[in-house]
Amino acid sequence: MAPQYAPSLRSRLPPLLLLLQAGFIVIYFFKVDIQQNVEKNQQAFRNDYSEFQDVNAMIILGFGFLSTFLVRSSFSAVGFNLLIAAMAVQWAVILNGVGSLYQRGKILINIRSLVVAEMCTASSLIAIGSVFGKINPVQLVLISLVEVSGFVLNGWLLQTFLLTTFLNSIMLLHIFGAFFGLMLSWALYRPGSEKYHEKEKIDSITGLSSMMGTLFLWVFWPSFNSVLVEVDHPDRGRKLMAVYSTYLSLAVSAVTAAGISVLTSPQGKLNLFHIQRCTLAGGVAIGVAMSVVHQPWVAMVTGLAAAVISTLGSRFIKPIMLYAFECHDTCAVLCVYGLPGILGWMVHLLLQITNADDLDAAVRFAVFHISALLNTLCLSMVLGLITGLLLKWTFWRPQQDKKCFDDQAFWEFPHLAVKL
Amino acid sequence: MAPQYAPSLRSRLPPLLLLLQAGFIVIYFFKVDIQQNVEKNQQAFRNDYSEFQDVNAMIILGFGFLSTFLVRSSFSAVGFNLLIAAMAVQWAVILNGVGSLYQRGKILINIRSLVVAEMCTASSLIAIGSVFGKINPVQLVLISLVEVSGFVLNGWLLQTFLLTTFLNSIMLLHIFGAFFGLMLSWALYRPGSEKYHEKEKIDSITGLSSMMGTLFLWVFWPSFNSVLVEVDHPDRGRKLMAVYSTYLSLAVSAVTAAGISVLTSPQGKLNLFHIQRCTLAGGVAIGVAMSVVHQPWVAMVTGLAAAVISTLGSRFIKPIMLYAFECHDTCAVLCVYGLPGILGWMVHLLLQITNADDLDAAVRFAVFHISALLNTLCLSMVLGLITGLLLKWTFWRPQQDKKCFDDQAFWEFPHLAVKL
Amino acid sequence: MAPQYAPSLRSRLPPLLLLLQAGFIVIYFFKVDIQQNVEKNQQAFRNDYSEFQDVNAMIILGFGFLSTFLVRSSFSAVGFNLLIAAMAVQWAVILNGVGSLYQRGKILINIRSLVVAEMCTASSLIAIGSVFGKINPVQLVLISLVEVSGFVLNGWLLQTFLLTTFLNSIMLLHIFGAFFGLMLSWALYRPGSEKYHEKEKIDSITGLSSMMGTLFLWVFWPSFNSVLVEVDHPDRGRKLMAVYSTYLSLAVSAVTAAGISVLTSPQGKLNLFHIQRCTLAGGVAIGVAMSVVHQPWVAMVTGLAAAVISTLGSRFIKPIMLYAFECHDTCAVLCVYGLPGILGWMVHLLLQITNADDLDAAVRFAVFHISALLNTLCLSMVLGLITGLLLKWTFWRPQQDKKCFDDQAFWEFPHLAVKL
Repeated sequence: MAPQYAPSLRSRLPPLLLLLQAGFIVIYFFKVDIQQNVEKNQQAFRNDYSEFQDVNAMIILGFGFLSTFLVRSSFSAVGFNLLIAAMAVQWAVILNGVGSLYQRGKILINIRSLVVAEMCTASSLIAIGSVFGKINPVQLVLISLVEVSGFVLNGWLLQTFLLTTFLNSIMLLHIFGAFFGLMLSWALYRPGSEKYHEKEKIDSITGLSSMMGTLFLWVFWPSFNSVLVEVDHPDRGRKLMAVYSTYLSLAVSAVTAAGISVLTSPQGKLNLFHIQRCTLAGGVAIGVAMSVVHQPWVAMVTGLAAAVISTLGSRFIKPIMLYAFECHDTCAVLCVYGLPGILGWMVHLLLQITNADDLDAAVRFAVFHISALLNTLCLSMVLGLITGLLLKWTFWRPQQDKKCFDDQAFWEFPHLAVKL
Repeated sequence: MAPQYAPSLRSRLPPLLLLLQAGFIVIYFFKVDIQQNVEKNQQAFRNDYSEFQDVNAMIILGFGFLSTFLVRSSFSAVGFNLLIAAMAVQWAVILNGVGSLYQRGKILINIRSLVVAEMCTASSLIAIGSVFGKINPVQLVLISLVEVSGFVLNGWLLQTFLLTTFLNSIMLLHIFGAFFGLMLSWALYRPGSEKYHEKEKIDSITGLSSMMGTLFLWVFWPSFNSVLVEVDHPDRGRKLMAVYSTYLSLAVSAVTAAGISVLTSPQGKLNLFHIQRCTLAGGVAIGVAMSVVHQPWVAMVTGLAAAVISTLGSRFIKPIMLYAFECHDTCAVLCVYGLPGILGWMVHLLLQITNADDLDAAVRFAVFHISALLNTLCLSMVLGLITGLLLKWTFWRPQQDKKCFDDQAFWEFPHLAVKL
Repeated sequence: MAPQYAPSLRSRLPPLLLLLQAGFIVIYFFKVDIQQNVEKNQQAFRNDYSEFQDVNAMIILGFGFLSTFLVRSSFSAVGFNLLIAAMAVQWAVILNGVGSLYQRGKILINIRSLVVAEMCTASSLIAIGSVFGKINPVQLVLISLVEVSGFVLNGWLLQTFLLTTFLNSIMLLHIFGAFFGLMLSWALYRPGSEKYHEKEKIDSITGLSSMMGTLFLWVFWPSFNSVLVEVDHPDRGRKLMAVYSTYLSLAVSAVTAAGISVLTSPQGKLNLFHIQRCTLAGGVAIGVAMSVVHQPWVAMVTGLAAAVISTLGSRFIKPIMLYAFECHDTCAVLCVYGLPGILGWMVHLLLQITNADDLDAAVRFAVFHISALLNTLCLSMVLGLITGLLLKWTFWRPQQDKKCFDDQAFWEFPHLAVKL
């Protein structure tokens, strides 16, 4: 008979966390410094700090609460989200600074480097959404560090060999995270887990707290997309364009997701999961496409298409992935981030080709653009698969099947005696 | 026997949403553009973007969660709030741009136009508060579009014929929304609905989530009042005055509402409904009056008076409205926004007359000021009444009486099997 | 037999609130004005307003929701937090302006004075955490006013006699609040109260809402520490340093608190209370030390040490305080704010001495620095003790022991009939 209690993490989690943290501090001691160029920094502070805080709120409050929808995993959702974000940001600052380390011997911290680190963290939080509830915090921490490393490597490859701009490579975070997570959920599939659905449901309270996460993301998404666009960019107020495009795209997404959700429901009712996630699809798609979007209607059509794909996907593709492909994708990251991201990539391709001066430039762009996507897909899927296979090792002490989606496995809490 | 289930909205809501959304996209395609004047816009971005985000958070998170207080309607509260806001903002941008459409052939989007659109949306969200839980999302969407149109028309009338400043006409949003909602609740009164109160109650969880909405509104209300005041206004740092006045007024409101609530309670206890709503009365009143408030104590006295009126109103007027006038005002919008708004209007009148140079100017101002209020009241009430009567039509498939205040009528959700 | 119901506050709370509020308005009428120097203020507005809003959100949303963890006191947590903040801010503006009142005859309100007032309020909210749930709102209001007065007095003493900088004296708010609260909880100890623990527990919903408070504090803490640092400070971008130090320190704290919590748990599980509070210890410690922290790794080590002390303290010292010293410290303010604050003070001492040019300067600094701490500790503890003893008076109508940690004593609410 299997043991009654989830295996203790006392000999795994604390050493991992404390050693990694000590290691980070040692690296920071030798190699990381605050940017000294004060004049430029103060300017940056006035311009960027409030946008940085918006992104910070999205990562910690938005992603954290978005995952609280499962009826018995809300502590894990917000707690592990905070833990992973705190680790991944420190790691991403180091990785993103490797270039500057070669040039100047030091990694410099400034608002921009923190924002980039949070973007990388967002990518790993997306990936984790696909296996949320089925793995323990030791595995979560390892996944997030590997995912961030892979994403930074992907960005470097794209910028170096495919001449992708920095902004465009960062914005592939949704695609990278989603496909990494997809393979992860395939590798970590628990046979027979479709039978353990009794804890994989929403109740009215967790539905509401999860909705709060959605609304945080929805409200601050314009900052997420625009924060890395230079305010002094020569091209037609690019930063403003990013803000307005994202705002409009999200608004259209919200309306469309509601419409499609009712349309595909036999009883003509809304599905909360769709409202929580598919309303965000517009923000994902426009984030990938935004550097070529110049008209409001393009942003709105993108938002509409993203919401349609995402809602139909959540309704029909998610169960197929589970039963046909054995991908148990808890938060439907494929449909919420993956497909809308690819849609955004296609909008980018289409608009750039339409605007190209000659056929040659168009073909050239298309080749580079397609290579960038393929590179991202391959790297994310291969890395996700390898990570998943390594984490199957019982050394990491995964919880039993029946302890999936359950805070009880990891949280000491006094309320179990009482009615939840 | 009446049918057991709420009528399906599948043939009503999706066509309405998707057709309206397609229509908006067509209008945006032909007539809406991003403001090109980059230099001015970048300045605007640095100054206004974080205030815009505060207002955005108030509309989506604040108003959304404020309505979650009813024990079985929390999904509808946040979900429909998002849906309506997403539609109403797009519509308000178009309506507010009609003037610029005539002059320049294009409607221009900038931070300011989005903020104004969100203010119009706030007005419709206030109106909807009065019938919340008793109508279906099809009716909600229609109400919000009519209300926004009426509010924009009212602003145009006031600015054109009564020489009201733009800011003062916008700030009548609370009065317009409240009286529109009042007539709506009268027209949509369900005879015998006072018997269906068993779902119209608060529990400790929804009370807490609703309190979160209150606190969002309370914290960011200074931005709501000051965002449209020009930072370069010549008159004595008007924007700062708006911030400080609102902050002090809200603080006094919170203290006063608590005091009056205990004083009027037979057991000497606080009422959560009062704390949630009457603490905001000061923000409403000072918003209407702020263009003539120059001293902190005036703001504080206004906040005190607004909280007294609002708390007494919620305690005593709300039941009278229901039993004597058949207005079933779910969120007490009359007492929370209507009366404090009129108080603010009176403070404005009083201060302006006191400060007037001669009797002639004072009388002239009073006539215009009173006409502006009467115009707003008449237009909002007539429009609310007409809208309400049109929405009584069963073509819109309203839910049955027993499905009022219940998410079950509109949301597909798996938790109904379990204890809520 | 003791009465069944908590004593009515109708004859105590409304007169107290309304009289105090009227008194504040009278003082504001005669002596408080808005700062007239518009040019300077507009600059301030652009720079500081969004940071002010971050701090405001921390005080109202962060501290408010952090206290909602107890299963039956969530209305009291957010409601009384708002009430106290609204009163204490008005009072702190007056007290902090006494100097300016002597010089210019007027107290001036500007963004900075509001931020300072909110810092003083934070100090009183920390103190109240130690007795939360065991006293009534009348006592809460009185405590907060006394605590704010004591804290302002302490700042004045430190700045006048010990030449402490303004910023350093403000940052002692955590230590002052924690030790004030500690003595308060000792003075107000209810013999036998360890038996009434059945309402002093967390459930999964209140744990989640409390976590929301934590995350608000965590996200915006960099603004809390940096808001009062001048953006034009000559020394190496001090404001940016404060932001980055706090951010890194909090990240390390979150990781460390999780590690230590699992390590000290017999079953190898996380404790939600530790994640909610000890992750913030880094922000407290670095806030006290920040004026001498120049390297990221110092901030990180401080965050690590603070989290270790705080987590071990919450695990082991909190029960000792209750059973051995009869301090029933509801929110563990000693371990969450007091000890990390003293750690920060020691880091400050250590770094300043290490960096000192000669032994003389080092000794001189140490004497002043130690005197500042002793002064703060003595004043806070004496004042806390006196306040506690005065509040034992039954004139204030404290609730019975069995009504501790229970909203029912103070809130009129309809849901008691139904299952919570």
